[in-house]
Amino acid sequence: MSKYSAVIVTIGDEILIGQILDTNSQWLANNLFSEGFTIAEIISIGDIAEKLIEVLEYVNNRFDFVVFTGGLGPTNDDRTKVILNNWFGAKLVLNHDVLSDISEMHFRRHGNKNLNQRNHDQAMVPDCCTVLRNEVGTAPGMVFSKDDSKTIFAILPGVPFEMKWLYENRLKEIINSKFDLIPQTYDLFHVMGISESALAHLLEDWEEQLPDEWKPAYLPAAGIIKLRVFRPQPVTEHYKQSIDTLKNLLGEKLIAKDQDTILDTVAKLLVSNKLTIGTAESCTGGNIARVFTQKAGASDYFKGSIVSYSNEIKTNILKVDEKSIEKFGAVSQEVVEQMSAGAQKILNCDIVVSTTGIAGPTGGTEQKPVGTVWISVYFKGKFFTEKYLFGKTREINIERTTNSAIYLLYKVLKNLYKPLV
Amino acid sequence: MSKYSAVIVTIGDEILIGQILDTNSQWLANNLFSEGFTIAEIISIGDIAEKLIEVLEYVNNRFDFVVFTGGLGPTNDDRTKVILNNWFGAKLVLNHDVLSDISEMHFRRHGNKNLNQRNHDQAMVPDCCTVLRNEVGTAPGMVFSKDDSKTIFAILPGVPFEMKWLYENRLKEIINSKFDLIPQTYDLFHVMGISESALAHLLEDWEEQLPDEWKPAYLPAAGIIKLRVFRPQPVTEHYKQSIDTLKNLLGEKLIAKDQDTILDTVAKLLVSNKLTIGTAESCTGGNIARVFTQKAGASDYFKGSIVSYSNEIKTNILKVDEKSIEKFGAVSQEVVEQMSAGAQKILNCDIVVSTTGIAGPTGGTEQKPVGTVWISVYFKGKFFTEKYLFGKTREINIERTTNSAIYLLYKVLKNLYKPLV
Repeated sequence: MSKYSAVIVTIGDEILIGQILDTNSQWLANNLFSEGFTIAEIISIGDIAEKLIEVLEYVNNRFDFVVFTGGLGPTNDDRTKVILNNWFGAKLVLNHDVLSDISEMHFRRHGNKNLNQRNHDQAMVPDCCTVLRNEVGTAPGMVFSKDDSKTIFAILPGVPFEMKWLYENRLKEIINSKFDLIPQTYDLFHVMGISESALAHLLEDWEEQLPDEWKPAYLPAAGIIKLRVFRPQPVTEHYKQSIDTLKNLLGEKLIAKDQDTILDTVAKLLVSNKLTIGTAESCTGGNIARVFTQKAGASDYFKGSIVSYSNEIKTNILKVDEKSIEKFGAVSQEVVEQMSAGAQKILNCDIVVSTTGIAGPTGGTEQKPVGTVWISVYFKGKFFTEKYLFGKTREINIERTTNSAIYLLYKVLKNLYKPLV
Repeated sequence: MSKYSAVIVTIGDEILIGQILDTNSQWLANNLFSEGFTIAEIISIGDIAEKLIEVLEYVNNRFDFVVFTGGLGPTNDDRTKVILNNWFGAKLVLNHDVLSDISEMHFRRHGNKNLNQRNHDQAMVPDCCTVLRNEVGTAPGMVFSKDDSKTIFAILPGVPFEMKWLYENRLKEIINSKFDLIPQTYDLFHVMGISESALAHLLEDWEEQLPDEWKPAYLPAAGIIKLRVFRPQPVTEHYKQSIDTLKNLLGEKLIAKDQDTILDTVAKLLVSNKLTIGTAESCTGGNIARVFTQKAGASDYFKGSIVSYSNEIKTNILKVDEKSIEKFGAVSQEVVEQMSAGAQKILNCDIVVSTTGIAGPTGGTEQKPVGTVWISVYFKGKFFTEKYLFGKTREINIERTTNSAIYLLYKVLKNLYKPLV
């Protein structure tokens, strides 16, 4: 438990009506936790003066550090700066550095320095704050403190990349100068092939013996359970032994660790075995390729993909037999294996994963309802093929097919594959 | 402004340390807003009894409806139920319906009904609550009220698909029986090709004349600004006229409306013009294909994609001239246009969009820094090709390339394309 508490406050009606997903909170929480804060709560409120003042009164002198994001734009619905200015009893003054930053930004974006009144207004800042100059947007960040309060207040714009830039390039330094923080982290174990309650049962005796602060948290999601254990600083021998015991208990069910994902494990296996990979995707529509290529360095092993959304592309490019499609349907073991074999030839890679299925919401039949999916991995002349029945929601079916394909790849590469029947 | 206020409380240390993105809040906020609530705040707290009790005391009799999610799992770190039980002065009793639901679920997942103690414990519920039986998971939802308070409390599990299922199949009905709600909505205008402050300037006079409750909110993100205006119920003639004026002011800059995205507009243009499309993707690695195929009904116009991540696939499948790659590099106008032309032939579609670029973090040079991207649309024998210089972050570069490619498609299909020079 850190000696310093922090609170994150995100401001915007768009959050309260569910119009946008508040990703700033997660990013800030992750960063403030790593720096060494205990985050006491995350609060989202609308662009309403009374509410913001209520929150200011609540956090003031109760928590050590409070970060606000949002409501700093140039438009009429953004009022955070004026409200803070009044609450701190300050006066808005023109900041010439900020004005010159805004002019530069305007020139880069629009080729001229003709600022309008709104641009000018963004350069007005409360006279009592430390200004965080923004090189990637027009709204500066601000840091405030009060003589009669232990709380440090920071305000950042709500646009995510501006918020992140100001945190990393401006605020982080100030945080570290004001607080004597001890960095924190946790060990994270990704577990597959067991239910949450069975896992809790398996680990019961091990958990029993642990000190409270090392008790694991369970995070289940789409077939993967993540076990989190806070790591003591410094790491003790006792802790190390406990973790070794946990790893032994988990055995083959432990598929990845910490920030690594199962995809990282697969990527490492591909690189260490000097294997190249490609995909042939129907129902996942390129999503597996996307997941592979989002990782930096993918070009070391990922060669490419044929997204064969239409049957014509299955037959013309992947050389799937037209008669097989007629006889068995496009969603069948025969077709998914021919897709893999065809893709292996045309992409000239060592291993191929293919998908075909009915993502929904339409296209299902009694024999093949929405959610029916075939996945096949082709490796060293052998097919490793499985059939799945997922649910009715298109997006979730695409996501689960992608996860299952990567898990199948993992099992094949680790020589853990056992047919499901 | 609704007469009923609501608060959303999400519970879990994983949210406070930024380990997961809290998507439940957005989903609930969106649904509660549409039902007719004014969401006063969204609060996230850890699995700590004192904090949960503090929040219970704060919301009690202050707001009309409060939804909690999280902390209902079968493991030791999930304590919400017990804390609530104590706070409401209730007693945990075995609920036989819930026990039978859990047995059924266990049988479907594991082929047997051998419940362990943890499974049994999930069937214990406070004797004062209304139980929301869960058909898609093991933790039931609960609804509480207190004699001396106006607040209705609802508790749902934190696993997103269970939370959504319980809301839609159980809680929604209860909400509508307890509150006399008037559904709410808003008009949303997607605007491209203008800066936020220039847009605010353009709309200044129009905004001036509007009643306060119709004043627009501005949401900028990656080149698109979304303008939101709350729609009065019922819609008045005055409101309709104001919206018509807005549309006239926006003109060609208005690219989509409401829940539609620019991709929906592109999809409609493809369908109405009976055009088929395909992609040839290098730096986007299948992301454009994924974005197209995530939409239900994509098979009506989307044929497929060649993800040519390696140069070998560019030359072998897309028939890009090896000499062009040598002379101009893989990230060049020549190569991106040959990719489009090659893909058009092999995918046999009417329109192709191709991308090649340096997504980063490595691979940049002085002439072609990280973030350099070429996008080309090939349509009716003509190339519409643009060069972009994005930033240094791989994920954002992939995202911006995808958005820009769809915007370029939009302009070509709407006959709005003008070369950037």
